[in-house]
Amino acid sequence: MHSGFKSFELMEFNSIIVRLSGEIGIKGDWTRRAYERRLLKNIVDALSHYDVPYEKIVRKCGRIYLKTHSAMEASLKLARVFGISSLSPALETTSKLNDIVEGSLSLATQTLQRGNTFAVRCRRVGHHPYTSADVCREVGRQILTAFPHLDLKVNLRSPDVSLGIEVRDESAFAFTKILGGTGGFPLGTQPRVVCLLSGGIDSPVASWLAMKRGCPITPIYFDNSPFTDDATTERALNVAKVLFEWAIGFPRKVYVVPHGGLMEIVEGGPKRLTCILCKRMMYRIAERIADMERAEGIVTGESIGEQASQTLRNLRVLSEAATRYPIHRPLLGLDKMEIEKMARKIETYQVSIQKAKACTAAPSKPATQAKIEEVRKAEEDLHVEGMVKSSLEGLRMVRL
Amino acid sequence: MHSGFKSFELMEFNSIIVRLSGEIGIKGDWTRRAYERRLLKNIVDALSHYDVPYEKIVRKCGRIYLKTHSAMEASLKLARVFGISSLSPALETTSKLNDIVEGSLSLATQTLQRGNTFAVRCRRVGHHPYTSADVCREVGRQILTAFPHLDLKVNLRSPDVSLGIEVRDESAFAFTKILGGTGGFPLGTQPRVVCLLSGGIDSPVASWLAMKRGCPITPIYFDNSPFTDDATTERALNVAKVLFEWAIGFPRKVYVVPHGGLMEIVEGGPKRLTCILCKRMMYRIAERIADMERAEGIVTGESIGEQASQTLRNLRVLSEAATRYPIHRPLLGLDKMEIEKMARKIETYQVSIQKAKACTAAPSKPATQAKIEEVRKAEEDLHVEGMVKSSLEGLRMVRL
Repeated sequence: MHSGFKSFELMEFNSIIVRLSGEIGIKGDWTRRAYERRLLKNIVDALSHYDVPYEKIVRKCGRIYLKTHSAMEASLKLARVFGISSLSPALETTSKLNDIVEGSLSLATQTLQRGNTFAVRCRRVGHHPYTSADVCREVGRQILTAFPHLDLKVNLRSPDVSLGIEVRDESAFAFTKILGGTGGFPLGTQPRVVCLLSGGIDSPVASWLAMKRGCPITPIYFDNSPFTDDATTERALNVAKVLFEWAIGFPRKVYVVPHGGLMEIVEGGPKRLTCILCKRMMYRIAERIADMERAEGIVTGESIGEQASQTLRNLRVLSEAATRYPIHRPLLGLDKMEIEKMARKIETYQVSIQKAKACTAAPSKPATQAKIEEVRKAEEDLHVEGMVKSSLEGLRMVRL
Repeated sequence: MHSGFKSFELMEFNSIIVRLSGEIGIKGDWTRRAYERRLLKNIVDALSHYDVPYEKIVRKCGRIYLKTHSAMEASLKLARVFGISSLSPALETTSKLNDIVEGSLSLATQTLQRGNTFAVRCRRVGHHPYTSADVCREVGRQILTAFPHLDLKVNLRSPDVSLGIEVRDESAFAFTKILGGTGGFPLGTQPRVVCLLSGGIDSPVASWLAMKRGCPITPIYFDNSPFTDDATTERALNVAKVLFEWAIGFPRKVYVVPHGGLMEIVEGGPKRLTCILCKRMMYRIAERIADMERAEGIVTGESIGEQASQTLRNLRVLSEAATRYPIHRPLLGLDKMEIEKMARKIETYQVSIQKAKACTAAPSKPATQAKIEEVRKAEEDLHVEGMVKSSLEGLRMVRL
């Protein structure tokens, strides 16, 4: 905070301008309105969940305006709500020019420092006795007059401080900061997906990307014990908890599936096919859970070539096991480093790298070019349908 | 270029250090070597294609060293070869300490400016009568002595100029610049995919991401005339040309498929299902071409919710039409803005936004929640198998 003349009242931020993802704006009217309503609900749910007080929330001219005296706190929470491209804590006044000037001066008092260059930019919707250019001129002139001791200069091209003013009918909003949102579509605008969640670095990122495009998720964790341990299960549940922080207002449940069949696969199947046979079982079980959840797809964290089981050939062999639902692999084309960078942003990374037992069922020389015929043959010798059945019988739903 | 003492010989860059994508380094020995060999071949193909002269290229200690007097030109070309994380034009000398110092001073002469801070960092592999620390100390000392008029200072934390030295057995390489590569896996380390390429902004990015993970591509363009025009076909072929610039050494062919069935769909199918029925035909034909090309997957540019035909429900209905190959959708979780940003980087964007006739077969109110039963029923009334057959008979292979 930097003082101008003490005589200006220091008004607090009392609202937030919420800008919607650009992709929402180009939808047809009906869809756009449905998306906006869903976003509004998700925002309200997030604020309630975090006990952030607010007085009013309105959709207007393709934006959402939130009246709140906890503007900074609310902005931080809303930065994690999908469907928002950016946010600005703002000072709301009436749209009378005098009030706009007064609000702008108050904001300027709090923002401008000695020697700064600044610009005023105004956008206006509604009928007013002034133009946008009038607002810029008047506010700019008054700032220069009010703070002569700060040596301010106007610079429209690359100012140190850009003072934005949005006039909307009877209201006006002044702001200087634009905080980035997460983008994407509001959660719940697409049908549900089930997600294979191992708790490692990749699978949460894949789940998150599906959420980002509007799909609520139901994570499925396969408990491969005794080939993994309790720490592995706990890690997966902790990762799910972080993911659910991005899905406030949606059910927080995870299916934990005892993957007993893996023992049979290890004992009865060809060693080099263990991971492929194991994953095909996971896909099959995921299909059944998708049925239960009325989901429309299965999301996995596979990236082409990242692991032996993820060569393009093997992905084909995997997909072949479950064709009633599409297998969605949002990480297909991403490098490990790109995935890790996203995991850090989502905040699952720190949980995913916690110690957990690497699956000891994995062979030292896994097949990278599995043949569908040999896989089918191996499955004939196992009891695939029985394995699916016994896993589903041991299914446990965990609410987080 | 900035002069130090004129007495230092200005040596030209005579080599490039090529650093491989980190993901290659963590592969098992056999796979890693195969990937390195493939990368070497792709590099040689790119240099030959662009007539960039070089004397020698060697794999050594997980890197590739290229001897060339066209180091800057070669670096720019190699920045587009998949599997490279970064490149440094370098000055190669013998690993005698005197020679290293001389090379470093020459590079310093060309790089350091008055008042700069600098650091010397050395990494060494092999047997030498000095340590890495010795090299740093000696080179640093000699630089300070040689350019007293430049007021240089050592700063190990955040120097203006970082002088890197890599000593590898009998050779040493001095460099100051690290240019970003494209990352990913060398093209050809994964099996081929066929790609649905409309020529719009998304499909080339999806194809490129598959290439980035090692898959050579065979683009398939569906000629929807009379619902589109020749400009649309030309645009798609031009986009393919840009994509093939990322695949030097690989076949440059595109399948152009007359999509005659679309007329039947428009005339005989329910209006709101036109796009879904059309795309399902494309998937079916893509399966046949994948057979011909021995591909292992089909790549499309769909992103969840971006278009009416791309709602999660509709993606499921689309996938159901082709289950012999996985439908890979690398853009699933990306926002339009993220896709556009990549398209600019790949340089397909400028071609994709060129004027082309938007498909006039698309209905004004497309189904966003198609039901698989109604789609199957609509297809019974059409002659699906005949449509596939006639499209395949009219198939044209274009070499670019």
